[in-house]
Amino acid sequence: MSTPHGEVQTPCFMPVGTRGAVKAITHRDLEDLGAKIILGNTYHLHLRPGDALVARAGGLHRFIGWPHPILTDSGGYQVFSLAAMRRVTEEGVQFRSHLDGALHMLTPESATDVQARLGSDIAMALDELVGAGECAPNAAGHDAGETHAAEAERAMERTARWAGRARARMLDLRGDASVAQAVARTNPGQAQFGIVQGGTDPALRTASVQRTVEIGFEGYAIGGLSVGEPVGVMYDVVAHTAPQLPQHQPRYLMGTGMPDDLVECVARGIDMFDCVLPTRNARNGQLLTRSGVISIKNAQYAEDLRPPDPECGCVTCRRFTRAYLRHLYIAGEMSAATLNTVHNLYFYLDLMSRIREAIVFGSFEKLRSEFHRTFSRRPQQFR
Amino acid sequence: MSTPHGEVQTPCFMPVGTRGAVKAITHRDLEDLGAKIILGNTYHLHLRPGDALVARAGGLHRFIGWPHPILTDSGGYQVFSLAAMRRVTEEGVQFRSHLDGALHMLTPESATDVQARLGSDIAMALDELVGAGECAPNAAGHDAGETHAAEAERAMERTARWAGRARARMLDLRGDASVAQAVARTNPGQAQFGIVQGGTDPALRTASVQRTVEIGFEGYAIGGLSVGEPVGVMYDVVAHTAPQLPQHQPRYLMGTGMPDDLVECVARGIDMFDCVLPTRNARNGQLLTRSGVISIKNAQYAEDLRPPDPECGCVTCRRFTRAYLRHLYIAGEMSAATLNTVHNLYFYLDLMSRIREAIVFGSFEKLRSEFHRTFSRRPQQFR
Repeated sequence: MSTPHGEVQTPCFMPVGTRGAVKAITHRDLEDLGAKIILGNTYHLHLRPGDALVARAGGLHRFIGWPHPILTDSGGYQVFSLAAMRRVTEEGVQFRSHLDGALHMLTPESATDVQARLGSDIAMALDELVGAGECAPNAAGHDAGETHAAEAERAMERTARWAGRARARMLDLRGDASVAQAVARTNPGQAQFGIVQGGTDPALRTASVQRTVEIGFEGYAIGGLSVGEPVGVMYDVVAHTAPQLPQHQPRYLMGTGMPDDLVECVARGIDMFDCVLPTRNARNGQLLTRSGVISIKNAQYAEDLRPPDPECGCVTCRRFTRAYLRHLYIAGEMSAATLNTVHNLYFYLDLMSRIREAIVFGSFEKLRSEFHRTFSRRPQQFR
Repeated sequence: MSTPHGEVQTPCFMPVGTRGAVKAITHRDLEDLGAKIILGNTYHLHLRPGDALVARAGGLHRFIGWPHPILTDSGGYQVFSLAAMRRVTEEGVQFRSHLDGALHMLTPESATDVQARLGSDIAMALDELVGAGECAPNAAGHDAGETHAAEAERAMERTARWAGRARARMLDLRGDASVAQAVARTNPGQAQFGIVQGGTDPALRTASVQRTVEIGFEGYAIGGLSVGEPVGVMYDVVAHTAPQLPQHQPRYLMGTGMPDDLVECVARGIDMFDCVLPTRNARNGQLLTRSGVISIKNAQYAEDLRPPDPECGCVTCRRFTRAYLRHLYIAGEMSAATLNTVHNLYFYLDLMSRIREAIVFGSFEKLRSEFHRTFSRRPQQFR
């Protein structure tokens, strides 16, 4: 995948740099880990420091000192999960900032403009988020009696209409220099991806693919998964949806997931992933290893002088013991978060690197079966 | 200065690694910054994870994964400043842990044993701490009516007696293999420094030097300063005391200080420094620069695209702007602490490196006057 800030080999994992920084580690750590692209959150950056300020600084790459590729989400997910209040209309989403309660409006056009100011390499079209079952974010403004199926269909239709508006705005930004200048667009080569919705209904997903691909984007994402549905259902939706997306454009599965999800969804055709799991769990003392999860705070590690994962080549595992990492975590030292994050991101990025290599050498199925032979999900530790 | 874990060029600054980690940065950052020796806190490590556990792990160097020199304090300072309760007798200090209220006893002998288990390269003899004026730590157990002068004399005398006991215990550990084994001593080459007390009274300081040097240690520290006395008084005490200490053994000024203090106290004969100031202030958003202090949270830096210190060569200044560092600080990102700490420690370690070079080339006085020409103390920002 080519971007204005460099090439990215796929399939790839994008560490989440919510507010212009991947939590607990520095850009240099990320580069050393081999991260080629990170994700920034439009909602957070719009509220603070503000996309106008970022544009005046020359765009997000320059503002945060990261000269490599960046993808920004549309802000929709955080509006639905974080904002103090939200009201969805055909025009867009009105919400109150979780920081100061100030009223904001995000529309397909304004979400496109915000990302144009940020100047990410890949911008996402604004979508309407509908969750699965009881894990669904509180979709205020919808009829209480609306069924999940009806809600999913309505949200898919609206997402498609919004995608059309987002794309039209992007084409204006690209085609009209005065519009681009008025918005303070900072990355002329910015790509835009559309998002496929449709819940867990294959027919809705197919319809969403058709509507979105018809509009035409540089790449396509599958949204609305990893929101609480059983993992098997998620795999089925991906298996159904991904092959319908254009073969020679990137396919991005948003917000997923566990390491075995990466392996399984690559098998189903996904090229790009992002997830807060490796970084968030690191800060909670959860270390991912080839055999499963270690909760480093447990007393059993107090005198355990082995590295977190004896087979791991990361700088944390090469230098430190479980006993020391436990000590740092219990003592509340910030470097516990740093060292754990380095390890977990290495696990994800190294896994993706091995997957890419296996694909080149035709040994992906071998890697897949070997991975599952040792890795244990133990999902209860991640909820 | 030669230690079992390598040589250290003096004069040097030792970053404070309270609980076996310099706060907010990794060992690799420290190595890249050129830190050759760090300080560990006996009080903290004794309480958690415990010196017995550290000894079973092979000593502090192995437990924390730092193969370079380490100095440990005696624990006395923290007992007097942090413990929930303390009672000083001739035997030692009884105190309650600030973590769980458990009762502990630190004597000159046990402080020596704890540090023998930790296996630092330089151990400190236990001293009795008496502060200056109203900044004095609460020295419970002393007569309320005791004057400062009498208190300083009494504490100096006791510190000298304790130094004799600490040294006797150290010689037992060195001379008697069965004692060393019973204690689980982890670093046979460990040195021991005595501490000179005596408050701000030149006669008491002279007496303390004589008493301490008479006992005979591998090096000597000046304690009981930087506890609230005017900086000019501190300089005078150092100027009076340091030249009386053996010329060919290290002279260590404990707990000092501001960058200009380092320059001035090197001029007065000091070889070693430690201070939490660069690391603690970094976490509070205070950046030290050649011209003085920057409080990065200030609104004036919101769009300031200059590096914190345009003349600085640290990785923070080479890559990031004041605007971004302010954003990270305001957003509460951990990496704000990391990037600020890297900068402040670079400032201290680079200053010491330039001082050493100037001494070799006979240009120290030139460096000293140039330093003061640009550096502004503005101490109010550090209280």
